[in-house]
Amino acid sequence: MIKIEHIGIAVNSIAEAGIVYQKLLNTGIYKTEVVDSEQVAVAFLQAGLNKIELLEAAADESAIAKYIQRKGEGIHHIAFEVDDIYKEMQRLENEGFMLLNEKPKKGADNKLVCFVHPKSANGVLIELCQEIR
Amino acid sequence: MIKIEHIGIAVNSIAEAGIVYQKLLNTGIYKTEVVDSEQVAVAFLQAGLNKIELLEAAADESAIAKYIQRKGEGIHHIAFEVDDIYKEMQRLENEGFMLLNEKPKKGADNKLVCFVHPKSANGVLIELCQEIR
Repeated sequence: MIKIEHIGIAVNSIAEAGIVYQKLLNTGIYKTEVVDSEQVAVAFLQAGLNKIELLEAAADESAIAKYIQRKGEGIHHIAFEVDDIYKEMQRLENEGFMLLNEKPKKGADNKLVCFVHPKSANGVLIELCQEIR
Repeated sequence: MIKIEHIGIAVNSIAEAGIVYQKLLNTGIYKTEVVDSEQVAVAFLQAGLNKIELLEAAADESAIAKYIQRKGEGIHHIAFEVDDIYKEMQRLENEGFMLLNEKPKKGADNKLVCFVHPKSANGVLIELCQEIR
């Protein structure tokens, strides 16, 4: 793992939470994006060396909508940056972790991503991500 | 904010979760500690530039025990490293954030820490921390 690439935070509204997090981190939102495959709108803020990703459901069936219904707003996942996502997926599979994707998929912010089931990691949804080069 | 100093993860047992996270991050636990003021046992793992802090309740009344009872194991807080915690606390107070400590207190890993109420930050418990110099 190179570093925590970002922390994903599920929010009801990026418009509202964006104001809070811009104040908290004392910086602006530098990118917004809609990830169709995940039915989410995302906004990124730089937190020094790391990033915060605000996630808003873009559809009622979005995983983020369901998450907020169940648990309320809050931290949704930790994303770790890795150098070689294929190698890291293989390593984790060999270690017995349950991967949610068989192959890396295109995520937000020009990344290949793969998720690890929270059941494998004490309730924490883990994302692996690698910059698309 | 300099960076995400660590992510705190509430677990039932550091002995068990420690095995999982050592495999996940492919690294050993480099420090364990009991923080009496918070009634928690903690274990740290390096995740590249950042850290993961596993938190186990050291008493039934510990905030971590209550958290797990209510929400189950999972991400408990995000800690941001700041250069001057007094200045940052003042800035956030001026911005309307609800701080949980009037003054910084001694936390784990040789840090001064202050928490921001999750109600101020869309359900996320935020810790500010500064290395004690």
